[in-house]
Amino acid sequence: MLMQDLIRKKKEGKELTRDELSYFINGYVKDEIKDYQVSSLLMAICFQGMNKEEIANLTDLMMHSGDVVDLSSIEGVKVDKHSTGGVGDKTSLVLGPLVSSCGVKLAKMSGRGLGFTGGTLDKLESIPGMSINLSKDVFLKQVNDIGIAIIGQTGNLVPADKKLYALRDVTETVDSIPLIASSIMSKKLASGSDTILLDVKFGSGAFMKTLKDAKELATTMVEIGKTLNKDTRAILTDMNQPLGLAIGNILEVKEAIATLKNQGPEDFKELCLEASSIILLQAKVAKTKAEAKKLLEEKLNNGEAFKKFKEFIKSQGGDLKYIDDVSKFETAKNIVPIIAKEEGYIHQIKAIEIGNAAMKLGAGRKTKEDKIDFTAGIVLVHKVSDYVKKGDVLAYMHTNHDSYEEEKEEIYAAFEIKKEKKIKDPLIYEIIS
Amino acid sequence: MLMQDLIRKKKEGKELTRDELSYFINGYVKDEIKDYQVSSLLMAICFQGMNKEEIANLTDLMMHSGDVVDLSSIEGVKVDKHSTGGVGDKTSLVLGPLVSSCGVKLAKMSGRGLGFTGGTLDKLESIPGMSINLSKDVFLKQVNDIGIAIIGQTGNLVPADKKLYALRDVTETVDSIPLIASSIMSKKLASGSDTILLDVKFGSGAFMKTLKDAKELATTMVEIGKTLNKDTRAILTDMNQPLGLAIGNILEVKEAIATLKNQGPEDFKELCLEASSIILLQAKVAKTKAEAKKLLEEKLNNGEAFKKFKEFIKSQGGDLKYIDDVSKFETAKNIVPIIAKEEGYIHQIKAIEIGNAAMKLGAGRKTKEDKIDFTAGIVLVHKVSDYVKKGDVLAYMHTNHDSYEEEKEEIYAAFEIKKEKKIKDPLIYEIIS
Repeated sequence: MLMQDLIRKKKEGKELTRDELSYFINGYVKDEIKDYQVSSLLMAICFQGMNKEEIANLTDLMMHSGDVVDLSSIEGVKVDKHSTGGVGDKTSLVLGPLVSSCGVKLAKMSGRGLGFTGGTLDKLESIPGMSINLSKDVFLKQVNDIGIAIIGQTGNLVPADKKLYALRDVTETVDSIPLIASSIMSKKLASGSDTILLDVKFGSGAFMKTLKDAKELATTMVEIGKTLNKDTRAILTDMNQPLGLAIGNILEVKEAIATLKNQGPEDFKELCLEASSIILLQAKVAKTKAEAKKLLEEKLNNGEAFKKFKEFIKSQGGDLKYIDDVSKFETAKNIVPIIAKEEGYIHQIKAIEIGNAAMKLGAGRKTKEDKIDFTAGIVLVHKVSDYVKKGDVLAYMHTNHDSYEEEKEEIYAAFEIKKEKKIKDPLIYEIIS
Repeated sequence: MLMQDLIRKKKEGKELTRDELSYFINGYVKDEIKDYQVSSLLMAICFQGMNKEEIANLTDLMMHSGDVVDLSSIEGVKVDKHSTGGVGDKTSLVLGPLVSSCGVKLAKMSGRGLGFTGGTLDKLESIPGMSINLSKDVFLKQVNDIGIAIIGQTGNLVPADKKLYALRDVTETVDSIPLIASSIMSKKLASGSDTILLDVKFGSGAFMKTLKDAKELATTMVEIGKTLNKDTRAILTDMNQPLGLAIGNILEVKEAIATLKNQGPEDFKELCLEASSIILLQAKVAKTKAEAKKLLEEKLNNGEAFKKFKEFIKSQGGDLKYIDDVSKFETAKNIVPIIAKEEGYIHQIKAIEIGNAAMKLGAGRKTKEDKIDFTAGIVLVHKVSDYVKKGDVLAYMHTNHDSYEEEKEEIYAAFEIKKEKKIKDPLIYEIIS
């Protein structure tokens, strides 16, 4: 077999067989196939796409390119959840303890990645003492004992994706739905859970800019799950404005804690309940969504979800003093209000601009080497459809920088205020299963 | 500037500026830009194409990526000719001395390349003593003194094309008209002639399979010439059956000699006269094609063209004994007739199959390392539209191999014989200027 032949077939819009994809993935992982041939094939895939069978084969081959986590020593149903990422997305911090308090097991491995704000791992690490590096045995025991653990990727998980992603990043071959879907799903499948819930976000603050693309990605990933016999469902959610009110690591942990005490922002709670209820259906803990939501509300109201969160944090070394009294968390030197200059209804709070501003304030990383300032970020006071008067505070900027006019302007510019009323857009658009 | 941005622009179908193309070509020649980014850009170009301005800029930048030959020390009009290659194409061997005998100067540098049969350099080297390695000064002096020299590429000519071509060859990015046109034209322009004539072939034995593609390539190259102020014309010719009767190095040299003595096959003579007449128009040696053809016929009939060929061969060290008596040339051990098994009219002599068979017999090279057997090849006895009876010889196979049944079958299979009459297709389809 020759790599040239695979490239030509795909360039001509033909289907690659499982044997051909195996030759490509295994050869690439072994460094037998050159980067320049792979990037040429990837670009051809960007133009010609892949059919369902090719995508499922590619995912399966990538998944088996390295270790596959064995969770069989954990009793009960092991669930997993993945978000394609957005601004203010701290869902895992709430959803994890919440479903775990209902008896399902969440053994979650997160990647770190770049982005507007830190990932789940960064948010957890903003809690003093918290460790996301557990040995495999400690990880499995913790999930068995308390029902939840979230750690960084360990072992040689999906090396094909590591190599491919690094190459795609510098060859403009990231934005291909078959490549995105196989990348996400190969990692989720290698993580060994029984079920997968995908939160596919769309809008200015998400990787998928349109509902149409998000739906295609979600459908593709759910199809992969079906083909490979893994219960996979997806939820399509809006990321045109940030999720909840807090953006930035410690700020988001505080909001997660408030939400676990049933004092969180309405939109964020809605997403946590919807996503968690699908997980309970997947795990067969509830028969209907209404039943699931009732159970979840109970767990928020009776404190069991928050208790589970504390068990989880304590088990990974986190200092519970901060969890019990969030005022103990370090805060940024400057907390600067963003003031409305006109009255009206908020039509937009552009997530991409809020995310960029938060990153510049230190909450996220542009390059792998950047260090995150856990205290930095933005707290919104209002959300889309709210009415504000001139002089009202729209948001607070948290920063240790002494010069922040540019970010202040950027945050202000993210708000679009008009005289006309604005009806709220839905947060959750569709469930795909 | 970032290579990623160029890739993305082209992927989205946008135009690359001269500055961007310059960043790409110069960075690649200096090894500052990686192969894997270039192959990704090349694949995007295969899908999105390039407009006239981009192609002219790319060609100009490639041309100036290394040395540009200075022919100003040669008196008179310096002409050049390039064929996109085909089976049995020995045109340069006849056209060179022919136009040179009319007073124009041909200072030709040939590349070697792979293919069905050897290139012009291989054909010349099949003449004992002949050298294609002349120093620059000797080369220029020879053209000044006798009007013609054909040598291998010397110096650092178009290094960008060398790198790009090697990469395109292994990444399935060869078949893009902007890339083919800029590759050919950058080399022709760097060779320093005043005029360029391109013989763009189409059909089963040519790189361009259809007249449409050949016309697009020819038009693109003529446009490049116009934009860069170089008189460039193109001739579109049929390569569905081999050109002339001989295929293989020594066999083709013999046919070229016969043609220079006005005893060559009709189709081959037609192409030599047509191409040469355009060159005479470009060089302003003739005012009309009729006048040009009359002059060329004279040079064939009065022996001056053949005399010029002998001067040329002698000047580069070739042994004239072989030229004066072609029976002195070495011949293959086995000369095997291919016999017609049925009677009828020849509808096709598939050039690609004849070319492949000739290559297997040793006349061409599959890889750079292959050594050519100058004696090997095929001599056709009949051409398309001829009537043959059962038992007639269709062609002779020349080989030093002792096992050749497969090639014999392949040559036989190239002939399509039917009861119905076959009208000859034209050899020359169009002149583009």
